[in-house]
Amino acid sequence: MERKFNFKITARDKKTQARIGIIYTAHGKIKTPAFVPVGTQASVKSLDNRDLAEIGSQLFFANTYHLYLRPGIEAIKRLGGLHSFTGWTKPLISDSAGFQVFSLNKKENTSLVKIKEDGVSFRSHLDGSSHFFTPEKSIKVQIILGADIMIAFDECTFYPASHEYSLLAMERTHRWAVRSLKEAEKRHDVQALYGVVQGGVYKDLRQNSAEYINGLPFEGTAIGGVSVGESKKEMVKVLDWTIPKLSPEKPRHLLGVGEISDIFELVQRGIDSFDCVMPTRLGRMGFCLTKIKKDGEFLIDLNKSAFAFDEKPIEKDCKCFVCKSYCRAYLHHLFRTRELLAYRLASYHNLWFIERLVDNIREAIDRGEFLNLKKQWLGSL
Amino acid sequence: MERKFNFKITARDKKTQARIGIIYTAHGKIKTPAFVPVGTQASVKSLDNRDLAEIGSQLFFANTYHLYLRPGIEAIKRLGGLHSFTGWTKPLISDSAGFQVFSLNKKENTSLVKIKEDGVSFRSHLDGSSHFFTPEKSIKVQIILGADIMIAFDECTFYPASHEYSLLAMERTHRWAVRSLKEAEKRHDVQALYGVVQGGVYKDLRQNSAEYINGLPFEGTAIGGVSVGESKKEMVKVLDWTIPKLSPEKPRHLLGVGEISDIFELVQRGIDSFDCVMPTRLGRMGFCLTKIKKDGEFLIDLNKSAFAFDEKPIEKDCKCFVCKSYCRAYLHHLFRTRELLAYRLASYHNLWFIERLVDNIREAIDRGEFLNLKKQWLGSL
Repeated sequence: MERKFNFKITARDKKTQARIGIIYTAHGKIKTPAFVPVGTQASVKSLDNRDLAEIGSQLFFANTYHLYLRPGIEAIKRLGGLHSFTGWTKPLISDSAGFQVFSLNKKENTSLVKIKEDGVSFRSHLDGSSHFFTPEKSIKVQIILGADIMIAFDECTFYPASHEYSLLAMERTHRWAVRSLKEAEKRHDVQALYGVVQGGVYKDLRQNSAEYINGLPFEGTAIGGVSVGESKKEMVKVLDWTIPKLSPEKPRHLLGVGEISDIFELVQRGIDSFDCVMPTRLGRMGFCLTKIKKDGEFLIDLNKSAFAFDEKPIEKDCKCFVCKSYCRAYLHHLFRTRELLAYRLASYHNLWFIERLVDNIREAIDRGEFLNLKKQWLGSL
Repeated sequence: MERKFNFKITARDKKTQARIGIIYTAHGKIKTPAFVPVGTQASVKSLDNRDLAEIGSQLFFANTYHLYLRPGIEAIKRLGGLHSFTGWTKPLISDSAGFQVFSLNKKENTSLVKIKEDGVSFRSHLDGSSHFFTPEKSIKVQIILGADIMIAFDECTFYPASHEYSLLAMERTHRWAVRSLKEAEKRHDVQALYGVVQGGVYKDLRQNSAEYINGLPFEGTAIGGVSVGESKKEMVKVLDWTIPKLSPEKPRHLLGVGEISDIFELVQRGIDSFDCVMPTRLGRMGFCLTKIKKDGEFLIDLNKSAFAFDEKPIEKDCKCFVCKSYCRAYLHHLFRTRELLAYRLASYHNLWFIERLVDNIREAIDRGEFLNLKKQWLGSL
């Protein structure tokens, strides 16, 4: 069966591994590198489909674990899949549910999760009900969701994991990758499947996993296990071990990473897409993205009383409707009074900000100026 | 001084007191009858200025009591008034703070409020701090807010109030009206001042109050004290006593009323504008307005599991972007999972729905078909 999915690299940076390209899906094109906002429960929190289109979000990420619990697969099946359920007509990615299931593991001292060769049993964080997920079940659910990109079921170990345990989990992830592929033979022709590279913070395991997953007939590769805890500091090392083992022509997604300084590092190493809750989560807390770096972050905290009389927009020269319409003093007031509008306006600005940054990165790669842009933003290479 | 405020009646219904007109303000025209959404803390909850413009909201109502406490008058003064603070460029109404202050009275068994001839002392519902409001202070604050329509400081009694107490409160309201007018001589030339008719549920008091307030040089008349508790059932009687005593050429605002069945009754009796939190408050609770009347209400409750698989929009034929983009099943899911987007989408639809109803009412008055439209909606006259 011909998949309605393709990836073409349109330009490469001469000095780094950075590249620009286009992922073609049945729901439209994705220009890469692409930032992917997260819509955990089939909603990018506080924003609607028109907002996302206006911001320039090309796709969003939906979490299979959450959607499996609510509204449940029956509802999404009867509504004809996630696209018709949400009214979002552009591409979607669903994850395998692995990450959320294994987060229960960490948070609850293993009491909610039991890992076996066949799959994982866990209790819902909502009502304590028991569930059992296997690679086959993850894929079955994702086929119903109907996202353009699905992700193979993997075991995400949490930092710090020993070499011994990371090896065990990686090998299980590899066996689950084969089972995911097998089950995914039944998927819709619009759906691509990405395999997941694991291996913790160990060079030999990451290299082994990258080679193994790359050798399987996935349409793309996701790199997992670098978004949580201290392991994030080791992201650059993990990418340096992993990416040389991956075929250049397959698209590469980095799971759960997207702070501004990270974005330059991961693009530089040849990542094509990456998802992150940061812009929306920080926005809901009152932190807004700006070009001015302070204390190592590109953020201002609108909760601070310093903004109570500030007539300026969040970011000078920002073209987003929030910056064109509202001053910091008003936004400060909305956060202090916990007005619902606060969360939306800050989320909107932050996603807009990240999308424009990624636009600029693609243009810079095209012009051969990626490292110059990185230096402008980070002050170093 | 020439006020930048005017009111012209452009057509009258032949069978009722209903009328259509235009209020001219420095921030634009208001077609009447006009529904006025409420932005308690300078934000119509969950909606932004673009949403409101798209919905067709012509103005919104800001609550002086809340803004006086947060962000405080100093912030709004330094930001140049409520228009530049909020970025809203169309007309605004501010209230006198009386209603909120006297609500503390009811809720807290008088412990938070003390009424004297000079004014009212009360404690903030936020931090218990002490404040003293007089007619002069209410007007001073409203001048700083800079809304196009200000409201004189009044005592709003709560149902049931005896004839004796209603008389006392009404007479105080009349003395406060004169003091409000005096202080308002300092107002900006863009600001109109409406006096408030009180008098509880007593015919003689309402008639007395309407005559007295109408005789003072206010630009318009607000009718208070019919929005709370059981007194709302007596709204029609109060309007029938009050309105014949008011000059036809002054605009009339009914404070705090706007359910669908109320709208027909108040327009029929010659009210030109009315504010109500109902569409947004109900929306945040999951109740959405529809043309189908059920159990006496034009509402569906999206929380109900009956909507879990419902592919239809909230309202068939509704042209709002929510109904064009989203199905009930998705909205049900957003409410069940308490996604922020739920509150915005339902508030948007409900305000849109009310604005289109009021559009239809104006057109019906113009065509001489107001009572036909009322019968279509309510099934009776």
